[in-house]
Amino acid sequence: MSRPRPLSGFPEWLPADRLVEQRLTDRLRRTFELHGFTPVRTRAVEPVSVLLGKGETDKEIYGLHRLADEGADAVAPADDARLGLHFDLTVPLARYVLENAGRLAFPFRRYQIQPVWRGERPQEGRYREFVQADVDVVGDGELPFHHEVEVAIVAAEALAGLPIPPVRMRVSNRKVAEGFYLGLGLTDVPGVLRVVDKLDKIGPDAVVADLVALVGASPDQARRCVGFAGVTGLRDPEALVRAVQALGVAHPRLDEGLDELGRVLVAAAEHVPDVLEADLSIARGLDYYTGTVYETHLVGVEGLGSICSGGRYDELARDGERTFPGVGLSVGVTRLVGGLLARGLVRAARSVPTCVLVAVPDEQRRVQAVRTAAALRSRGIPTEVSPTAARYGKQIRFADRRGIPFVWFPGDTPSDGEVKDIRTGEQHPADADRWTPPEHDLIVEVGRP
Amino acid sequence: MSRPRPLSGFPEWLPADRLVEQRLTDRLRRTFELHGFTPVRTRAVEPVSVLLGKGETDKEIYGLHRLADEGADAVAPADDARLGLHFDLTVPLARYVLENAGRLAFPFRRYQIQPVWRGERPQEGRYREFVQADVDVVGDGELPFHHEVEVAIVAAEALAGLPIPPVRMRVSNRKVAEGFYLGLGLTDVPGVLRVVDKLDKIGPDAVVADLVALVGASPDQARRCVGFAGVTGLRDPEALVRAVQALGVAHPRLDEGLDELGRVLVAAAEHVPDVLEADLSIARGLDYYTGTVYETHLVGVEGLGSICSGGRYDELARDGERTFPGVGLSVGVTRLVGGLLARGLVRAARSVPTCVLVAVPDEQRRVQAVRTAAALRSRGIPTEVSPTAARYGKQIRFADRRGIPFVWFPGDTPSDGEVKDIRTGEQHPADADRWTPPEHDLIVEVGRP
Repeated sequence: MSRPRPLSGFPEWLPADRLVEQRLTDRLRRTFELHGFTPVRTRAVEPVSVLLGKGETDKEIYGLHRLADEGADAVAPADDARLGLHFDLTVPLARYVLENAGRLAFPFRRYQIQPVWRGERPQEGRYREFVQADVDVVGDGELPFHHEVEVAIVAAEALAGLPIPPVRMRVSNRKVAEGFYLGLGLTDVPGVLRVVDKLDKIGPDAVVADLVALVGASPDQARRCVGFAGVTGLRDPEALVRAVQALGVAHPRLDEGLDELGRVLVAAAEHVPDVLEADLSIARGLDYYTGTVYETHLVGVEGLGSICSGGRYDELARDGERTFPGVGLSVGVTRLVGGLLARGLVRAARSVPTCVLVAVPDEQRRVQAVRTAAALRSRGIPTEVSPTAARYGKQIRFADRRGIPFVWFPGDTPSDGEVKDIRTGEQHPADADRWTPPEHDLIVEVGRP
Repeated sequence: MSRPRPLSGFPEWLPADRLVEQRLTDRLRRTFELHGFTPVRTRAVEPVSVLLGKGETDKEIYGLHRLADEGADAVAPADDARLGLHFDLTVPLARYVLENAGRLAFPFRRYQIQPVWRGERPQEGRYREFVQADVDVVGDGELPFHHEVEVAIVAAEALAGLPIPPVRMRVSNRKVAEGFYLGLGLTDVPGVLRVVDKLDKIGPDAVVADLVALVGASPDQARRCVGFAGVTGLRDPEALVRAVQALGVAHPRLDEGLDELGRVLVAAAEHVPDVLEADLSIARGLDYYTGTVYETHLVGVEGLGSICSGGRYDELARDGERTFPGVGLSVGVTRLVGGLLARGLVRAARSVPTCVLVAVPDEQRRVQAVRTAAALRSRGIPTEVSPTAARYGKQIRFADRRGIPFVWFPGDTPSDGEVKDIRTGEQHPADADRWTPPEHDLIVEVGRP
C-alpha cells in the first residue's frame, strides 16, 4: 500500500489526542450516569424511509449498498429495505422508542455517544463523520416541564466538569417567541423566526426591512421584534420579565413561556452557577422545538459555534396510538475536541495510559520484569514492560518519548526494585507490592496545556 | 411512523442488556489500559481500494453513496474516492499505521473497540453490524517474539476478568505446523492445512483420504498428519514436545515453533492459570498468520464459536520502504454478549445506572428533592428524582420496575431524609451528605443470574 492520505471530513486523532477525546467522553458519561441516564447504542443504519421520515432533504445522507451488487442489473430494493447511515442520534432514538415502547419504562432517560455521518462539504466544525453525545428524556403521552429544567442542568454540569474553557448555555423558549409575535399581531411565527435568525449576519436594519417586506410587519412591529431579539445575557428571571414588558407586548403564551424560562434560570443559578442565561435572540430551532431551546458556546471560542444544542419536542415520535414527547441536548464531541485541539487549548499529559515502564536489564531477566509489572497492575497501576533490553538510557528515552512518568528498574523479585521519576531524575528503592504513584500520575491527565 | 421492526443482523439491546455490554467492554478496556495499550478510534469508512487491498472478495463489504446521487447520471467516482464501511479493525489499523508512521512511537500498542460491518447473511453468532475489541502490538521492521506471549496474556486476563463462564484459549504456531509437514516431506503446507481444517466436519478417515488424493500424501504421511492434529489440550511444554516427538518427525522449524509455543504456555501458566492450552488441531488462520495463533471458546458454550482470535503477521502493513509486523487478538464483543444473553448466562442487576430514587412528596417540594439528589451525586451516588409526585407506593413501584435499590424520602433539607431499601423494606433516617450505599449497589452489578 502506498502511504495513505487522510480523508477530508473524517477526522482521526493521534494517540495523545484520542486520549483527550476519550477522557472527555468518559467525563460526560460519568455525569449522565450520575443523573440516572442509561446508555443506549443503536445500530449505525436505519431504513432510508425512516431517515427521510419527516420529509427532510436527503442531501446529507449516506446510503449503503453491497459492493458485490455494484454494476449488476439488480432491481433496486424497496424503499423500506434501503439502508442509510444515521445523520443524528434523534431519529434513531425516536425509532428505538417506537420499536421497544412496550418494553421500556417511561419517562425513558437515555444517553448515547456514537458517531453520525453526513455527506456534506467539510469545513471547520463540520465533518462527514463525527461523534455526538446525546442526553434525552422521553415521555409516553406526556412529559412534565421540569424535565426541561433537568436536562439543561445535566448538560451544563457535564460540560462544566470538563477541563475546557468555561461554557455559556443560552436558553430561550418557543412559547416566549410565539407569544411575543402573536401579542404583537404577527401570526406568521415561522416566517418571523426565519428573518430574525439572520440578525447576526445582516444586522438590525436589514432585519426590519425584511420583516416589513416578507411577513407584512409594520415598521414599528419590526423594530419591536429586533428589540425582542436584543434581550440577551440575563440570568435574573425578574430582569427578564421587566425587559420583555418594556417592549409593551402582552399575550398569555408569552407569560407562560417567561414563567418556564424563569424556572430554568432559577434552578441553574443554584446547581450550575454562571453557566445559563436567557437569550431571546435565539431563533434557530424554535421552528421545530415546542418549548425550551438550548445553545452552548465556549467562552472565548465562540467562533467554533454551538457545542451543545437541543430543546423540547412535543412529538419526538408517534405511532398510530401514542405520542412520545421528548427533551434533550446533543454535545458535539468531535467539534468540541477538534476545536480545542486545533487551538492548543487542551492536551493529554502523555500519549499512552502507561504510568510505569519496567526496564529489562537483559532478555534472561524479562521474566522478572514481567512479574514486577503484574504486581503493579494488580494494584491498578497501568504498567508496561520495555520491549527491548537496550541500555537503560535508551529505555528511559523510550518512556520519555511517550510521556510515561516512571521507569522501574527490577531486582530479583518485585519487592527489591528501584523507581525513577524521569521528570525529576529522583530515584529510590521501591517494592512493587506497595509503591503507589501520585494520584495525578496514575491516570492520564487531560487539561489546558 | 408505524411500529418499526428490528433489522435482521443489526442487533440492538434493551437498556439492561446494553448495560451488560457496556460493563463488559469497560472491563476489557480497563485491562488493556492497565497493560499500557492506548485507545485508538478510526473512522468507519475506508477507500474501497484499501478494503480490497489484499485482493480479498468484496462480497461482504458495504459501499457508501450519497443518497442525493442515486439515480443521477453521475460518473462513477474513481476507485480511490469510493468509500466502504470497514469489515474488521485490522485493515484500518494497518492503514492508520502507514498514514501516521512518522508520528507514532513503535512498538505501537493500541486497543480499539468499535463496530464493524459485513453484508453477509445473518445467523447465530454472525451479524451485519457487530462490535469488536482488538488489541495489537505493531513493530517497525521487527517485532520480538515476546509480544506474542504478551498479547495472549493480556487477552486471557481481560476475558478471565469478566463475569462470564470460564474461557479456554487454544494456541498453536504456524512454525510448528509448517515444520511438521515439511519434516514429513509434505511441501504444500497451505494445501495440507486446508484439508486438516475439515477434520471436525468430515472426520479422520476422510481427511486421510483427502490428503492422499489432493496433496499427494502417502497413507502413512496422512495418518501422521491426523495424529498431529490430535495433539490437543496440553498445558505442559514438555508433554507437548513428547507428544510431537512420538509422531517421529523432525525439522528445525518444528523445533523453533515448539520452543515458542512452550514459552507461551509457561508464561500463561504463571499469569493466567488454567486458560491457555496448546492445540495443534488449529488450522484456520495458519495460512495467513506467520507465528502464534489463538482461538478462544467459552467452556460449556463451545457452540458459540471463537470469541477471541488472532495471531502474528510478519507483514501487517508495508509501504515502499518499511514493513510493519504485528500480533494481536480480536474479541467478538457482540457475539459474546449476544450469545450469553440468548442463553440467560449473564444479566444486569438493574436497567438504569440509578442507585437512589429521591421521592417527591408534592410538586412544591420538588426543589428539596432535587437538592437532596445533588448532595448524593456530589459523593458519586447515581441518583434521579421521581418524575411525578404520585403517592409513595407508586413512586416505589417506579423504582422497583427499574431495579433501583433505594428510595429516598426527603425532608426539608438534604440531611433529614429517610432511605428505604425496597428489596428488604428496611427504612431508616439518613443524611444525604453522609449516607453511602453498599459497594455492590453503587454501580450496576453484571454477572451470572
